[in-house]
Amino acid sequence: MSEDRIVIVGGDAAGMSAASKIRREQPKRDILVLERTAFTSYSACGMPYFLGGLFDDFEKLIARSPETFREEYDIDVRTRHEVIPVDPSNQRVTIRMGRDKVIQEPYDQLLIATGARPSCPEIPNADAAGIFGLSTLASGLRVHEFMSTKKPKSAVVVGGGYIGLEMAEALVRQGLDVSLVQRSPEVMGTLDPDMGKLVSQALRDIGVTLYLEEQLEAFEEKDGAVTAVVTSRRTLPTDLAILGMGVQPNAELATKADIRLGAKGAIEVDSRMRTSTENIWAAGDCAATVHRLTGQPVYIALGTIANKQGVVAGTNLSGGDARFPGVVGTAVSKICDVEVARTGLQEKELRNLDINYSTATIKAKTRAGYFPGAGPITVKMIAERISGRLLGAQIVGVEGAAKRIDIVATALTAGMTVMDLIDLDLSYAPPFSPVWDPVQTAARKLVKEI
Amino acid sequence: MSEDRIVIVGGDAAGMSAASKIRREQPKRDILVLERTAFTSYSACGMPYFLGGLFDDFEKLIARSPETFREEYDIDVRTRHEVIPVDPSNQRVTIRMGRDKVIQEPYDQLLIATGARPSCPEIPNADAAGIFGLSTLASGLRVHEFMSTKKPKSAVVVGGGYIGLEMAEALVRQGLDVSLVQRSPEVMGTLDPDMGKLVSQALRDIGVTLYLEEQLEAFEEKDGAVTAVVTSRRTLPTDLAILGMGVQPNAELATKADIRLGAKGAIEVDSRMRTSTENIWAAGDCAATVHRLTGQPVYIALGTIANKQGVVAGTNLSGGDARFPGVVGTAVSKICDVEVARTGLQEKELRNLDINYSTATIKAKTRAGYFPGAGPITVKMIAERISGRLLGAQIVGVEGAAKRIDIVATALTAGMTVMDLIDLDLSYAPPFSPVWDPVQTAARKLVKEI
Repeated sequence: MSEDRIVIVGGDAAGMSAASKIRREQPKRDILVLERTAFTSYSACGMPYFLGGLFDDFEKLIARSPETFREEYDIDVRTRHEVIPVDPSNQRVTIRMGRDKVIQEPYDQLLIATGARPSCPEIPNADAAGIFGLSTLASGLRVHEFMSTKKPKSAVVVGGGYIGLEMAEALVRQGLDVSLVQRSPEVMGTLDPDMGKLVSQALRDIGVTLYLEEQLEAFEEKDGAVTAVVTSRRTLPTDLAILGMGVQPNAELATKADIRLGAKGAIEVDSRMRTSTENIWAAGDCAATVHRLTGQPVYIALGTIANKQGVVAGTNLSGGDARFPGVVGTAVSKICDVEVARTGLQEKELRNLDINYSTATIKAKTRAGYFPGAGPITVKMIAERISGRLLGAQIVGVEGAAKRIDIVATALTAGMTVMDLIDLDLSYAPPFSPVWDPVQTAARKLVKEI
Repeated sequence: MSEDRIVIVGGDAAGMSAASKIRREQPKRDILVLERTAFTSYSACGMPYFLGGLFDDFEKLIARSPETFREEYDIDVRTRHEVIPVDPSNQRVTIRMGRDKVIQEPYDQLLIATGARPSCPEIPNADAAGIFGLSTLASGLRVHEFMSTKKPKSAVVVGGGYIGLEMAEALVRQGLDVSLVQRSPEVMGTLDPDMGKLVSQALRDIGVTLYLEEQLEAFEEKDGAVTAVVTSRRTLPTDLAILGMGVQPNAELATKADIRLGAKGAIEVDSRMRTSTENIWAAGDCAATVHRLTGQPVYIALGTIANKQGVVAGTNLSGGDARFPGVVGTAVSKICDVEVARTGLQEKELRNLDINYSTATIKAKTRAGYFPGAGPITVKMIAERISGRLLGAQIVGVEGAAKRIDIVATALTAGMTVMDLIDLDLSYAPPFSPVWDPVQTAARKLVKEI
């Protein structure tokens, strides 16, 4: 299919990873990328740190600009081009350029890589000025402009997931009075509550006021600008509101084209990133994936996954054969000095799956106890009863704590047991770890519970 | 065998891990530990940091004192008790207490955990004052006392392994003029020379003068104190010399008792830590082990291995069934701001084994490029040709770089291929990693070379 024309809808992680891979494999292939914003290939994950003032130049977030792709990769990237409908029977996309102009472009192969957007319930005044979600770089720049011009003094973050927490920290750094509203008993619902509690405390320690077990019900506005966040229990006056209630896949193109949807409304794909419709592929935050531990469909919007799926799609679109095997649910974040990481399945998932499991939680130090900078780390580990098969782990601790989650992510992928984990030949020197790495200390405790 | 008497020779990592494990399993078991120094259960690995002045109180290096073991664990620990010969036919050990007193003690089961000592060639004046190796805590305290009383201005470190490098840094921190003599073309012979070169440079950057490809030939002395180190190419005047040429197992007890020796003269043990002689066991730095990748015997003296072997021996000695599966050769160290790690097999080992391999080396950043503190990391990865089976990795980089070696150590243990490594769901957020973790970036490059 080297003569075919590939059209890619969306120019961020998945789309441009695919485009770059295709170009490397097929120097002459006709590749058209349509991106509705002005930017390509940027780190959306970096926006909270830009907004928190950790660096000043937003262009640092851009890995490769549209010009770079055009000039160095010979890829026809068209920004401010929004695809409206896809017509699979005629293999054609309709594109809106600017406000009015509409054109059509044919494709032989189409890759949908349209990403995700912040979830927001349909509640009063959700469209008021000063309410922001973060997804595209453009959306981050809008927050930046709002903060520069309006100089808000207070902010309410709604939702205590990764983006919510990172934005809470960013706003504290910028001197705002920050509150956070969270539906569940602790922030970071991807952790079990006993571990989430440590993260809630970390937020309080940096000065964030938490309103837990409260639900967003409305916004109040004056002259079109948000003035308060209304929860199920109170009204919180605010100059700025950030939506951190997770994201939903931008799957409208697929829906309209009768492409099958999967987990949480994301586009269903096979391991080669093919959708249910011939010659249409999907990758990144708009697509579903599979959990390697359960074999079940799952929707997790993360840059790592988007990049990997993009490469897999690009490989297959350029005549190779690659498969994306799925995820184990690894994630990491940081609230000032506190690092948080998780992988695998958490207790509520295990209960839903009716898996018989045991847990163990230990407190240790990140380095040898006598080494300067040694600080607390808490590791919770989960394994199947009887078999001892690892099912997951969660880590909260100071600098150096979180990246250890990768040991468990690797062990989970290999199907290791908790006994296998104890036997691992992990690195040790006093500046890096106690002689038993904390994940092995957790495993040693857990093995007695199985 | 709950009525049997267990005698353990050596009261550091392996010996006391075993003793503690037995006590937990068998509260009434008769356990006698004989330790020739005054200390038990200390972190020998921490001595360079104590000597470098990172903390002042050497007692912080002691995890548990003899008194703690006696009072809280009800273990009969006798310090300054040196076992001279073992008599396997009569199941008896002969013990020297102090200078003259000699007694005998019977055993039913004997665990030899006598550790290792610094290697030193037989050369002129090797017994002069001011020449030190580091193995026991007592030896570390002798260096400390020498430095406090003699106030040396210059030091020569002989050997560029972990201890040599850590001591070089420690002595630089204490304001000494430090040289390092190393036989091979780069320091850190457990790395391939292309990676070792980065570590040599890190040493030069902190002010250590390197004399590479030079061999130790003699010491010079005056009035019994060292005055110079003589190499194959020059004479280096010095106030202090540190032996960092590796260690050799304290296997004399085993040799005299006709117990079989294995790799590099260490005591041969099976996976349950039994020696060739009935009722005699060995664990820790005096014992050999097996490399999980080659299945071949190997001798690696490290605290992590000693602790694990001690627990395995203790489990088996208290009626359980545990096995030590071997090692993959993981190690980590730090020279000021530069972190160094390795696991698996290095090129010279692979050539000796006649394994057909490929390598790839990449330079990346430890964090997202725009994130403050992002710094260089170099990853070299090695895999078998055709099959793609992972064989090893080496990492040199700034803070946050080295612990990533554990991902590869885990993957090696699981028998993963370089393709499997690319698919791993590793943690990513801008403060922790680029979106492709550097070990995956190395794997992506390596996969093209296979």
